[in-house]
Amino acid sequence: MRNLSIGIFDSGVGGLTVFKEISSLLPGENLIYLGDTARVPYGGKSAQAITRYALECALFLLTKGIKLLVIACNVSSAYALPLIKRRFPIPVVGVIEPGVREAASVTRSKRVGVIGTKGTIRSGVYENYLKRIDPEIVVISKACPLFVPIVEEGLESDEIAYIMAERYLKEIKEADVDTLVLGCTHYPVLENVIRSVMGSHVKIVHSGKETAKVVKDLLEKENLLSRRRKGEHRYFVTDLPESFIETGSRILGRKIDSVKCVKQMDFRYIFFSS
Amino acid sequence: MRNLSIGIFDSGVGGLTVFKEISSLLPGENLIYLGDTARVPYGGKSAQAITRYALECALFLLTKGIKLLVIACNVSSAYALPLIKRRFPIPVVGVIEPGVREAASVTRSKRVGVIGTKGTIRSGVYENYLKRIDPEIVVISKACPLFVPIVEEGLESDEIAYIMAERYLKEIKEADVDTLVLGCTHYPVLENVIRSVMGSHVKIVHSGKETAKVVKDLLEKENLLSRRRKGEHRYFVTDLPESFIETGSRILGRKIDSVKCVKQMDFRYIFFSS
Repeated sequence: MRNLSIGIFDSGVGGLTVFKEISSLLPGENLIYLGDTARVPYGGKSAQAITRYALECALFLLTKGIKLLVIACNVSSAYALPLIKRRFPIPVVGVIEPGVREAASVTRSKRVGVIGTKGTIRSGVYENYLKRIDPEIVVISKACPLFVPIVEEGLESDEIAYIMAERYLKEIKEADVDTLVLGCTHYPVLENVIRSVMGSHVKIVHSGKETAKVVKDLLEKENLLSRRRKGEHRYFVTDLPESFIETGSRILGRKIDSVKCVKQMDFRYIFFSS
Repeated sequence: MRNLSIGIFDSGVGGLTVFKEISSLLPGENLIYLGDTARVPYGGKSAQAITRYALECALFLLTKGIKLLVIACNVSSAYALPLIKRRFPIPVVGVIEPGVREAASVTRSKRVGVIGTKGTIRSGVYENYLKRIDPEIVVISKACPLFVPIVEEGLESDEIAYIMAERYLKEIKEADVDTLVLGCTHYPVLENVIRSVMGSHVKIVHSGKETAKVVKDLLEKENLLSRRRKGEHRYFVTDLPESFIETGSRILGRKIDSVKCVKQMDFRYIFFSS
């Protein structure tokens, strides 16, 4: 069991910001990443569509032999985590709770900003979780729908990124928060832009690091940590490996060697009929 | 047969720019529109993925009782039109050829610009068709990947649209074209912006009007024109009817009353196994 891999999925390349933290904290683990690039982006789609897509990704990774599953996508964590957790025989970790706990522990003013895709913001999941930890926390949230295409197009240092960040963050800045949660795994790529708009006094929380810690703790507790020195990394996409390699290598800060394209990922019948 | 509908599909709301022209030229026809909003956008995806999605959309409409199919999506026309034409028992019309013929007939300088999604530009289909009509035509083409999300987000009058248009169109403007083809059915929504960047001396071709004429000619020739006074319009999407209604009503210039959400559109097995 301890020799099995950790499975990680996202709608596209964004989840690699989480993958990167897990690989640096747990270098001995075999990691398998799946980016559902045939259906990216998830963020503007319905709860029902996102849940179905997330289940299919999770089942694909399960067939690859994994001991733990990371849903490295906020909107999938928001809608599909409870269902997948209930039905899967292995531990399942989302990216929202780790980010929420970090935000609740670092805020002093109890005024927290949250940005994410439309789906994540519409779900209200950050607000609910934050208020469950501390009902006094005031949450100001904002959907930033153009951020994902900007990252996917490699425009994270472009003036367009600054203009949209100024606009999207205006309300949150005026609300005088001391903490801002990046509620989408694509957004850490825009961290410099976001930081320059928000100012250095605002703490920026992205859930990659926190999620990696949760994964380590869980594996330790279950006595499932790998004893290897160096794990292997495998990458799967549902479409267009070339552009995944290009943007993904930039996110990881190292060249992705090879990516396999999954032709058919249709587990929905098996799953829903059971 | 003449009482059957015309089926029209696109990856999202963009094809409504074509739907609008068909409904105004042929008010007596019943029209059925399908927007594949669960998988939008197609433009950045692979030829293989786009072909599969387009086939599924086409088959869905076929099951609704149609006498003619319009592929109101450039990238689907680029990759899937020949296959669908070959296999379907009814006339199938794409949006590329009508636009190409119009562009070739209006250009005087024989310098034509083409803009579209990555997939359409990568396919080289406009360049091939234009050169087949007139080998002397020089084509300058450019992918504009952020235009679709800008339209889907309703930002067509925003400064962002102007900034991106200035950037995307720079090369084409400098190449001194006298005609610009909008090679994506979303782009007519940005026509004002594009016109202000290109200047009034450049003719802008969008294929909606030309496609509508082709549809009318074909139905006439086959003696399939409806004798109704006023046809019915039905709209289907694969996800999120609400945002389709919002953006779609803006495109059509009239309120879309009701949209049905298609839950399952999995005809690929039937089709590929035949």
